[in-house]
Amino acid sequence: MSEQFEKLRPHLERQMALENALILYSWDNETLAPKEAMDNTAKVIGILSAESYQALVNDEVRELLRALKEPKEFDSLSSLEQCIVKKLTKSFDRLEKIPADEYRAYSELTAKAGQIWSNAKESNDFAAFAPTLKEIVTYQKKFASYTKKPDMSLYDAMLDENEEGILTRELDVFFGKIKEEVVPLLKKVVAQNDGVDKQYNIRNYPVEKQREFCRFLAEYIGFDFNRGVMAESAHPFTTNLHNHDVRITNHFHEDNLESAMFSVIHEGGHALYEMGVDDALTLTPVGGGTSMGVHESQSRFYENVLGRSEAFWKPLFDKLKDTYPDTLADVDLTQFIRGINKAEPGPVRTEADELTYPLHIIIRYEIEKMLMEDLISVEELPRVWNEKYKEYLGVTPKNDAEGVLQDVHWSGGAFGYFPSYAIGNAVAAQIYAYMHNEVNVKECLENGNLMPIREYLREHIHSFGSTKNMNELLVAMTGEPLNAEYYTKYLTEKYTKLYLS
Amino acid sequence: MSEQFEKLRPHLERQMALENALILYSWDNETLAPKEAMDNTAKVIGILSAESYQALVNDEVRELLRALKEPKEFDSLSSLEQCIVKKLTKSFDRLEKIPADEYRAYSELTAKAGQIWSNAKESNDFAAFAPTLKEIVTYQKKFASYTKKPDMSLYDAMLDENEEGILTRELDVFFGKIKEEVVPLLKKVVAQNDGVDKQYNIRNYPVEKQREFCRFLAEYIGFDFNRGVMAESAHPFTTNLHNHDVRITNHFHEDNLESAMFSVIHEGGHALYEMGVDDALTLTPVGGGTSMGVHESQSRFYENVLGRSEAFWKPLFDKLKDTYPDTLADVDLTQFIRGINKAEPGPVRTEADELTYPLHIIIRYEIEKMLMEDLISVEELPRVWNEKYKEYLGVTPKNDAEGVLQDVHWSGGAFGYFPSYAIGNAVAAQIYAYMHNEVNVKECLENGNLMPIREYLREHIHSFGSTKNMNELLVAMTGEPLNAEYYTKYLTEKYTKLYLS
Repeated sequence: MSEQFEKLRPHLERQMALENALILYSWDNETLAPKEAMDNTAKVIGILSAESYQALVNDEVRELLRALKEPKEFDSLSSLEQCIVKKLTKSFDRLEKIPADEYRAYSELTAKAGQIWSNAKESNDFAAFAPTLKEIVTYQKKFASYTKKPDMSLYDAMLDENEEGILTRELDVFFGKIKEEVVPLLKKVVAQNDGVDKQYNIRNYPVEKQREFCRFLAEYIGFDFNRGVMAESAHPFTTNLHNHDVRITNHFHEDNLESAMFSVIHEGGHALYEMGVDDALTLTPVGGGTSMGVHESQSRFYENVLGRSEAFWKPLFDKLKDTYPDTLADVDLTQFIRGINKAEPGPVRTEADELTYPLHIIIRYEIEKMLMEDLISVEELPRVWNEKYKEYLGVTPKNDAEGVLQDVHWSGGAFGYFPSYAIGNAVAAQIYAYMHNEVNVKECLENGNLMPIREYLREHIHSFGSTKNMNELLVAMTGEPLNAEYYTKYLTEKYTKLYLS
Repeated sequence: MSEQFEKLRPHLERQMALENALILYSWDNETLAPKEAMDNTAKVIGILSAESYQALVNDEVRELLRALKEPKEFDSLSSLEQCIVKKLTKSFDRLEKIPADEYRAYSELTAKAGQIWSNAKESNDFAAFAPTLKEIVTYQKKFASYTKKPDMSLYDAMLDENEEGILTRELDVFFGKIKEEVVPLLKKVVAQNDGVDKQYNIRNYPVEKQREFCRFLAEYIGFDFNRGVMAESAHPFTTNLHNHDVRITNHFHEDNLESAMFSVIHEGGHALYEMGVDDALTLTPVGGGTSMGVHESQSRFYENVLGRSEAFWKPLFDKLKDTYPDTLADVDLTQFIRGINKAEPGPVRTEADELTYPLHIIIRYEIEKMLMEDLISVEELPRVWNEKYKEYLGVTPKNDAEGVLQDVHWSGGAFGYFPSYAIGNAVAAQIYAYMHNEVNVKECLENGNLMPIREYLREHIHSFGSTKNMNELLVAMTGEPLNAEYYTKYLTEKYTKLYLS
């Protein structure tokens, strides 16, 4: 047992507990806190953020980390302790470059921003959100300028935070390939599936029934309600206090069948990841998912690869029809599968099908890059947003609520996050291509037994928490690092089979 | 501006933020957290409690408090600052006597105990709760032995925490008077109102309708949903993060009309108190209600003095009937008022009428006193409980879930709290006796306009937070300190009018 590591332990504990509290506040703000609470609560959040900062960035921790990284000392650590030291060093090195008072002010700002965004979206008023967004962008740029490596752009520094080593250079190639292969595929598919009738989707679906069915779906894919809860919020999300307390939210629309169903499968995928982390890692700095890209790979694997397949719905479709017997009386499984996979350019990312989805991401990626390179201003965002939507998807949002205000991410300072969704799709396709060697996915789905799938992911991904990064996981699992070929191949095969053959 | 006080400010802020987080955890545990979360979350709570302890108990704060209490320095402070220094000194003096490690271990223990109690109650298994309760009692005794004044008993030290200066000597007199006057009154009333038919109370009341009506009641008495929320928990309670975020819970029973209705009026009374604290006090150490007794005076004033009066229901009874048109078709206002005021000895405190209620409190007071004086052991509690119920109320709980396990309080270490309910009743009666000079309560109620009542209480009690104690508030308002006469007089008049005249 390393004496130095034992000295580090109380510091780890303090920072972990404070970060845990901040997660709880953030959950509470999104799901429950009353309207007028925010100004006071943001003060509390600012103070706790400053405490958390100081729990990590102090001379004692600096000295302990230095000592622990001495080769002789480092070699004496267990492999878990080594992972913790590496992870903590990374956080320390980043955080110590940001001045404490700016960190606190920024935390207070983003604590309030979620509600400001949500009000602005509700009243379709971008100008009400713009000043706050401007402040957030300014902080994000400042922080990136403090923390980035000398040869990095500001946006690269943000991307690096979300998925280490996947920067604009890599993403330009990645998205280039997608554009090259998906855009022509999409054109062909749209020409073919235009006649697919998904009118069923916008009938009346009582919220209480949706809640019940979504709860069933969560359990069906393996969400454990003894270790998790479900609530509601403006924008569905997943969070967790630790691997025995994982929380997902949903948002119900009475006139939309698919929205909440695919949200719960998506968030459920995130949740299974966190629930599956090994107990040895609980409440340590490596106790959560390893990166946003890997997280999105799990959510999108469940949502799309599984959730939008015919095999998934075969044992479930009767139950769905029984839930809404009159409303779905005229819809059969084949029509439903074609419906949930209909490729149809639209203005809203979270409602997008698998084929148009990456284009929504490319739009955001290009806009964020321009914003961080000062090529456009916050005020210009609505215009640029709509132009890009016209260019890539041929649609124009009917207003800013449906356009530039649709996503929660920027209000939380999450710049450089969107590419994770596309990376997640690619990782999911790569995993899927190899999973077949060990698990008969189709059979599992058709038999209504998803546990072997969850167990496979648990064994190869979930259990490791963040002790391995994305490419380490992928190499161990598939023999190669991230390879976008699997993704484009998956899309081409799926959509060819559905509509072009 | 005092330089010393400015130096104190960051310490105040840190402790306030940490305590705020602990409140949020406690709320979350009672209302939402999944079953298997507790062991890990309790660790987090233990760490944050230790942080909060250290934020207050340290040499710097000790030195600052000493300097601030120097007469010259103290006189230079604003009156709010003086209150803060006094309040903080009291907390400091108490807390520094408790060893830090015991404080943390105790916090972790009580964080887990709520769920252990709730499971034990659900499965009617006192033995499953007893070991935890024993540990809590041991800590409570230890802490009281550290903090009590030399001439105090352990139980007096606990009482003093809840209501400064109202110790066993005062309570023996107070409860003696109640026994002397209420027990004979109860006998007479029971003999008379035995025929009151309240069968209506145990019909079928769908939970969804109850939720809706309770929400209406909360708003009706002045609960502001922009500054508060309502949720559900095993045992109704009120808590708050600050005066702009006040939270109440309820518990619904499909076969009981009154339970949830009077709970929401009760918790609503607590909530109005916290919502009414002056904004200048928000997030300071004097930003909450001043004592448990005064808090209960507000809740029980709303629940009983207002909520069980005919004037209250006059403008509401039709709405209640419209909510359950078939179920209440055969019930008229007179019958309902007699029903909700029927004096009827029963085993459950929270379901008790105003007349038997104080007997439930006397039972708990006597038991707690014996427990803390080592006259009985934790294992003997079920037996002693049932004996006392037989003696005072002539009833025997059908099992421990309905008996000794019925209340949440002990699982949270709240010994010495129960007398606050009776003190609250007395304070409420005293306030009521004087309020008439300024507000026509009956007219307000009959007109369905409760705002003048809330404003009166806000002006004379709520706004002060804890800058004044119970007797300071009472003397300013009524010209005299707590006087139990008003309470027995109120009960005698009310029940004489209802059933004996």
